[in-house]
Amino acid sequence: MRARVYVSLKPTVLDPQGKTIHAALKGLGYTAISDVRQGKFFEIRIDPQTDPAALRKQIEQIARDVLANPVIEEYRVELLD
Amino acid sequence: MRARVYVSLKPTVLDPQGKTIHAALKGLGYTAISDVRQGKFFEIRIDPQTDPAALRKQIEQIARDVLANPVIEEYRVELLD
Repeated sequence: MRARVYVSLKPTVLDPQGKTIHAALKGLGYTAISDVRQGKFFEIRIDPQTDPAALRKQIEQIARDVLANPVIEEYRVELLD
Repeated sequence: MRARVYVSLKPTVLDPQGKTIHAALKGLGYTAISDVRQGKFFEIRIDPQTDPAALRKQIEQIARDVLANPVIEEYRVELLD
């Protein structure tokens, strides 16, 4: 089984990397773009014996404790196949 | 309108960051996890006048030319609302 965890800065937190990319795209002539924000994601492969409910709980816990910093970041968990 | 571009290392490319996270999770007792790979994503906000076909083409071009390194990375474009 696979799970994906998407981590991004909270909307209220400034994203200098996104701002830089936005400025670069403007400079390249992409003027229709009004904002860019960057995030990261983790693709996690799990042994298939685990039951889906327990699995989601475990991945949520990993996201909160290890992958994201809940002070400035938010996360989203997605379970695949 | 919004678009998301997901960029990840090609499957054949070693991902040391993912390997480190995997080792850390094993150390924390998450033994059911068999692999972790890290990627990044970009949430792009676009002025709504653009037509969807042209927009996808433009975002694909941005992904290829600016956001991803096609030698070692692959990307996926997703259009939202």
